[in-house]
Amino acid sequence: MKTTTLSELGEFGLIRKLTEDIVLRHQGSRKGVGDDAAVIDHKGFLTLVTTDLLLEGIHFDLTYVPMKHLGYKSVVVNVSDIYAMNGTPLQITVSIGVSSKLSSGAIEEFYKGIKLACNHYEIDLIGGDTSASNHGFTISVTALGTAHAKQIVYRSGARKGDLICVTGDLGGAFMGLLLLEQENHKFANDPKYKPQLEGYQYILERQLKPEACKDLGRKLLARNIKPTAMIDISDGLSSDLLHICEASGTGSRIFTERIPIHPETEKLAGQLRISPMVAALSGGEDYEILFTIPPGDAKALQPLEGITVIGIMTGKEDGHLLELKDKTTILMEAQGWNAGKKWGKL
Amino acid sequence: MKTTTLSELGEFGLIRKLTEDIVLRHQGSRKGVGDDAAVIDHKGFLTLVTTDLLLEGIHFDLTYVPMKHLGYKSVVVNVSDIYAMNGTPLQITVSIGVSSKLSSGAIEEFYKGIKLACNHYEIDLIGGDTSASNHGFTISVTALGTAHAKQIVYRSGARKGDLICVTGDLGGAFMGLLLLEQENHKFANDPKYKPQLEGYQYILERQLKPEACKDLGRKLLARNIKPTAMIDISDGLSSDLLHICEASGTGSRIFTERIPIHPETEKLAGQLRISPMVAALSGGEDYEILFTIPPGDAKALQPLEGITVIGIMTGKEDGHLLELKDKTTILMEAQGWNAGKKWGKL
Repeated sequence: MKTTTLSELGEFGLIRKLTEDIVLRHQGSRKGVGDDAAVIDHKGFLTLVTTDLLLEGIHFDLTYVPMKHLGYKSVVVNVSDIYAMNGTPLQITVSIGVSSKLSSGAIEEFYKGIKLACNHYEIDLIGGDTSASNHGFTISVTALGTAHAKQIVYRSGARKGDLICVTGDLGGAFMGLLLLEQENHKFANDPKYKPQLEGYQYILERQLKPEACKDLGRKLLARNIKPTAMIDISDGLSSDLLHICEASGTGSRIFTERIPIHPETEKLAGQLRISPMVAALSGGEDYEILFTIPPGDAKALQPLEGITVIGIMTGKEDGHLLELKDKTTILMEAQGWNAGKKWGKL
Repeated sequence: MKTTTLSELGEFGLIRKLTEDIVLRHQGSRKGVGDDAAVIDHKGFLTLVTTDLLLEGIHFDLTYVPMKHLGYKSVVVNVSDIYAMNGTPLQITVSIGVSSKLSSGAIEEFYKGIKLACNHYEIDLIGGDTSASNHGFTISVTALGTAHAKQIVYRSGARKGDLICVTGDLGGAFMGLLLLEQENHKFANDPKYKPQLEGYQYILERQLKPEACKDLGRKLLARNIKPTAMIDISDGLSSDLLHICEASGTGSRIFTERIPIHPETEKLAGQLRISPMVAALSGGEDYEILFTIPPGDAKALQPLEGITVIGIMTGKEDGHLLELKDKTTILMEAQGWNAGKKWGKL
């Protein structure tokens, strides 16, 4: 009998296989796997649920990630999924598996970061689990939130002609990671080496202490704009846009010139001789929100700072295109840089 | 500067330190850390939330635990915490970190167990996360449920004079684990050795495929009995009873002769020359429910099968006593066998 290895099946193949026969039996389980958060409906009151696993050596490297930042980021990656449903996070649970190499002071620092994020995002830490771990630091966070039934936004509502918008700028978190890994590598080879991080404060913060888009929902509501689809950018623009397109049954066209890139992202990309566009499209971990709006809402969107229209939804038959400066187009690839490592949500 | 190691501070000291300054800011966050599940209140509709982390080498050994059973048990340990609030589980999320040594078939088996448990406990699998893992199989399950505001039971409601009751029998899961570890050890030393598991079907199932107390709440409600305090027995009778006493501000007296022990538990304990009482008091993982009722409800409880009155709540000043057959008493110790490994919930 032949055993299929995971690498043969592929992680997306496995997730598809595991989830294909899931049946939801409770009327309240309105949305299960396949979006940023699951949705539970109790007489019109919606509870959103999302969970993320963070493993040492896969998602973070404790040689250069401070524990307090790691705690903060563990919360951010989860509340970001609630915002990506146009919802409001309310509570989290935090479970940790602690290897013996960690001091109690290190764990306290981690929880300081957790509590700082709870303050900033106005959420309650309501529970969790703790365990010893034989191998590495393990973090599992679950976030709960809510959304008004009329305001909730799924990945599936985008239509041909809708405008593709993004908050903030893209690729910074990935370039921050490259910088940290490069300098850490140099330091590991030469303990006298002094890591050169100056001039890159912004992209380092994007990687080590990202923020979720706390105010987007409120801003859009104030201008009477209801997005047709939303997702947070955790895997990279290309991969996350394809999630929306797949759920909505559309194609897409992105104008690469319009993709917002921070000067520090540009600068380091230039130094490393890679295209900043690669960081934006495939880097991930930016925790910005990618969303679509009906073309009629474009005018209402204009006064809002920090939001950029970067493309347009097309018909499914049109595929997924990147339009370059000279108007030529190339096919957009789905692969995030972390494929094969971080896999993805159910 | 001196760094406090975890073993110096102790795991309970750490959990206390991490949770002592937690403030709940949302009115809806009715109960945070310190019970079997957190409680979120939306206009009288209560959502219960509980989460458990299961790590390879700490909570399970894949050399003798079948993946399907592991999936089933991962659900059971979580829904058990919902039943221990006198609630009904409704949904779960399942996150896994998968090491490269696992085949896709093994992961599918694990999910078969998850789905089997979802069917049995009538709950929906609504989400989760997947990741590669550098070290060992990692499982994090979160269960959501609900309870009627008038029916929910906390650890804190027991009063002096209340009767201490327990479902099923105790110590079986621990004796099953001892048997599995003993036979696995013999097999590891001699690959020709054929593990001897016959005659121990019951305690093996208690360890490998435990069940949670699905029907207890319904049965008690039908007889108009409302427990004053409840907890599930995951750490062992002594440890879990002390959790109730601490939350309720009481002492306790257990009549050891009354503690229900299965014949297979007795038999193996005899063979291994240990007291079955040690397995019942400190073994854990039985996932039975320990609860207290007002003395006036004793008569209503009597016809219910599978429930045993094992003791009485006393004043805090009376301490925690075990009354032996000859009426002498000894102090009940708090330590579960897994202290220092599995730590505990926030």
